[in-house]
Amino acid sequence: MNKSYKEKIEEYRESIDRLDSVLIYTLGERFEKTNKIGKIKAKNNLPTSDHDRELRQIKRIINIANEANLDPIFAEKIFKTIISEVKNNHNKMKK
Amino acid sequence: MNKSYKEKIEEYRESIDRLDSVLIYTLGERFEKTNKIGKIKAKNNLPTSDHDRELRQIKRIINIANEANLDPIFAEKIFKTIISEVKNNHNKMKK
Repeated sequence: MNKSYKEKIEEYRESIDRLDSVLIYTLGERFEKTNKIGKIKAKNNLPTSDHDRELRQIKRIINIANEANLDPIFAEKIFKTIISEVKNNHNKMKK
Repeated sequence: MNKSYKEKIEEYRESIDRLDSVLIYTLGERFEKTNKIGKIKAKNNLPTSDHDRELRQIKRIINIANEANLDPIFAEKIFKTIISEVKNNHNKMKK
């Protein structure tokens, strides 16, 4: 028996929910690491931003997005939002 | 011998780069699924938006973010950006 389109959508949505859990836990782990860097930077009075590191990150992200069949413009947008949040957190730690 | 703070930062950055690969490939997989839903919706002339589904998604994301020690306000922001991109893609498929 062929699945109805409603059943197909439901199956895809179940996958999407599982992938969202992966995304959230991975982001949680990523902020755990960046918060540790933030503490080191605050303790050693290092600058919050590292322009060269950021450029390398964005270049790397665009390359992997192309491999992963993810729109690189969208990938850049998402990661710029993440990096901006990291810098805000690091600035708060300095105060 | 104690690691210098530069070595510690370098180690955390290597983890962050690996986590970014996970994020990008997971997002790639997520858009693969939402694109399949988009095709079904376009074929069957279904609406792009599903307000109830979105509300359930955001509620679920906030709950998981709290478990994952991820700022729920930030999680909501990121996922609203993702969901908005999905809806744009679905609208393009209808044309």
